[in-house]
Amino acid sequence: MNKTHIKPLGDRVLVEPLAKEEKTKSGIIIPDTTSGERPEQGTVIAVGPGKMTDDGVLLPLSVKKGQKVIFAKYGPDEIKIDGKEYLIIKEENILGVIEE
Amino acid sequence: MNKTHIKPLGDRVLVEPLAKEEKTKSGIIIPDTTSGERPEQGTVIAVGPGKMTDDGVLLPLSVKKGQKVIFAKYGPDEIKIDGKEYLIIKEENILGVIEE
Amino acid sequence: MNKTHIKPLGDRVLVEPLAKEEKTKSGIIIPDTTSGERPEQGTVIAVGPGKMTDDGVLLPLSVKKGQKVIFAKYGPDEIKIDGKEYLIIKEENILGVIEE
Amino acid sequence: MNKTHIKPLGDRVLVEPLAKEEKTKSGIIIPDTTSGERPEQGTVIAVGPGKMTDDGVLLPLSVKKGQKVIFAKYGPDEIKIDGKEYLIIKEENILGVIEE
Amino acid sequence: MNKTHIKPLGDRVLVEPLAKEEKTKSGIIIPDTTSGERPEQGTVIAVGPGKMTDDGVLLPLSVKKGQKVIFAKYGPDEIKIDGKEYLIIKEENILGVIEE
Amino acid sequence: MNKTHIKPLGDRVLVEPLAKEEKTKSGIIIPDTTSGERPEQGTVIAVGPGKMTDDGVLLPLSVKKGQKVIFAKYGPDEIKIDGKEYLIIKEENILGVIEE
Amino acid sequence: MNKTHIKPLGDRVLVEPLAKEEKTKSGIIIPDTTSGERPEQGTVIAVGPGKMTDDGVLLPLSVKKGQKVIFAKYGPDEIKIDGKEYLIIKEENILGVIEE
Repeated sequence: MNKTHIKPLGDRVLVEPLAKEEKTKSGIIIPDTTSGERPEQGTVIAVGPGKMTDDGVLLPLSVKKGQKVIFAKYGPDEIKIDGKEYLIIKEENILGVIEE
Repeated sequence: MNKTHIKPLGDRVLVEPLAKEEKTKSGIIIPDTTSGERPEQGTVIAVGPGKMTDDGVLLPLSVKKGQKVIFAKYGPDEIKIDGKEYLIIKEENILGVIEE
Repeated sequence: MNKTHIKPLGDRVLVEPLAKEEKTKSGIIIPDTTSGERPEQGTVIAVGPGKMTDDGVLLPLSVKKGQKVIFAKYGPDEIKIDGKEYLIIKEENILGVIEE
Repeated sequence: MNKTHIKPLGDRVLVEPLAKEEKTKSGIIIPDTTSGERPEQGTVIAVGPGKMTDDGVLLPLSVKKGQKVIFAKYGPDEIKIDGKEYLIIKEENILGVIEE
Repeated sequence: MNKTHIKPLGDRVLVEPLAKEEKTKSGIIIPDTTSGERPEQGTVIAVGPGKMTDDGVLLPLSVKKGQKVIFAKYGPDEIKIDGKEYLIIKEENILGVIEE
Repeated sequence: MNKTHIKPLGDRVLVEPLAKEEKTKSGIIIPDTTSGERPEQGTVIAVGPGKMTDDGVLLPLSVKKGQKVIFAKYGPDEIKIDGKEYLIIKEENILGVIEE
Repeated sequence: MNKTHIKPLGDRVLVEPLAKEEKTKSGIIIPDTTSGERPEQGTVIAVGPGKMTDDGVLLPLSVKKGQKVIFAKYGPDEIKIDGKEYLIIKEENILGVIEE
């Protein structure tokens, strides 16, 4: 079986969207909006090394692998690996961490 | 019963909008605008750790849990947890703190 | 009687617009513009703690409570408290202080 | 008689536009443009304290009260005091000083 | 035989897009989007010296020659060398590294 | 006879466009473009004191009075002094110095 | 015979586009794009002194006179000197150096 991993670069995070039944379990519902833009729920699969500042300092990310997060979805960053859907997003687009 | 919490990231704040009867009690009325954009009133439920500067310094937020605030509402940041409506907003969009 | 105060956040200022008769007294007239945008006159009711720089330094505001100011009005920042109209604006949108 | 002054804030300057006969005397003619935007001539009436940098340093302005200047006119910053027209502009929009 | 190389400047990277059969082997599928924008897969052929900061410090790139990457494709940066297609992209547009 | 000078402010430069016969002599021809934007040739008449940085450091300009320059013409910065046409432009819009 | 030179200012570079037969020799082909924007090939004729940072430090350019480069062509920066076509471009728009 083919096992492919993606290591996000910089301040990016690889996220797997929550399946429908998981969303229901969490109790969090995100209402439809007229603009079509709305936050999504997902699980962090991998995190990048951090954001490199202009001073050459690497600021590590604050989210961790395994955390469930709410994030704003911008642009076309969706990919599929072995049939599963993932997103590669910047950490600044993660609104918060879901704690159960 | 399912108890879900959201921990806001960075300089974000989780806010619960004021119910109609609370708004009336506060004496603050926000007139309708033609553009549809207008500030809202709400209670701070949780605050993020703060804003990370490019020097790697964490600047903590100035609003505190429990404060009533007036905030500008931009974009689609509304979520529902266990049937209640919340917003995740950046602190820079909070205009002021309501003191009674 | 309900007494509500608003404490502006950051570099924001709470301003009460001048009533018509006060504007006439000041001798300052602001002509109508075709674009509808034009400066307004008002009295400073409360000032925020100041602007937090990226180095974590708080730069206090230069306007003071009680001063009459001319300010540019952008966006929907109008609120009403106990029937009176106010605006919450950023200090950078205050053009000048009126001295009589 | 009512004597009102305006003290500009920050890096702003209070300017009185040159009357038609003064413009002719200066020998400077500003041709009409198709876009309607074009520089204006005026006399500096008052200057703000300067521009506050992010390090909290106040950089004083370089124009002085009484100088005749050429400036670019943007937006609706016109006011009238006791019947006379003035403008409150940022110093960065002053192109040069007229020396006779 | 003519052998031409391109040395990318600054924080740019020369990338050769993956052929169809390689994409299938990797197990990564990038779905079509309505906007037409979508990430691509490719192999890093050459990397620039790095990003020069305003302090004159050269920050070297984190991707290495030979790595397979997923990148966002913006603008017209396609070239052909000896019949093969390449792209010259900024490292900030590389979303992640593919590890097999 | 009326002798008016203009002292440019900041990083601005007062330029007198080259007359047609001078342009021919220089051997430099600037082709018409479809967009109507194209660089111009001119002689530097006066230079501003320089660009003030946020640290309060004055960076002097690199062009000198009397140099012939090629510059990009943006916006409505044309004036006439005693019948002659001039432009007040920012040094960053000067592409290069013509050396004969 | 008239010999005119242009000394680029700042971080600009004077480039002579490659003639058709030279492009063929290099083996590099740049495909047409629907947007009309596409990189060009050329030879560096002269380089500016470098980019002045806000700290007053001059960062010299990395391309050298005589190098063949691939560059993105933006805006109307074309000139003709003694019948030959040239471009004055910013170094940040040079994608890479061609090595044969």
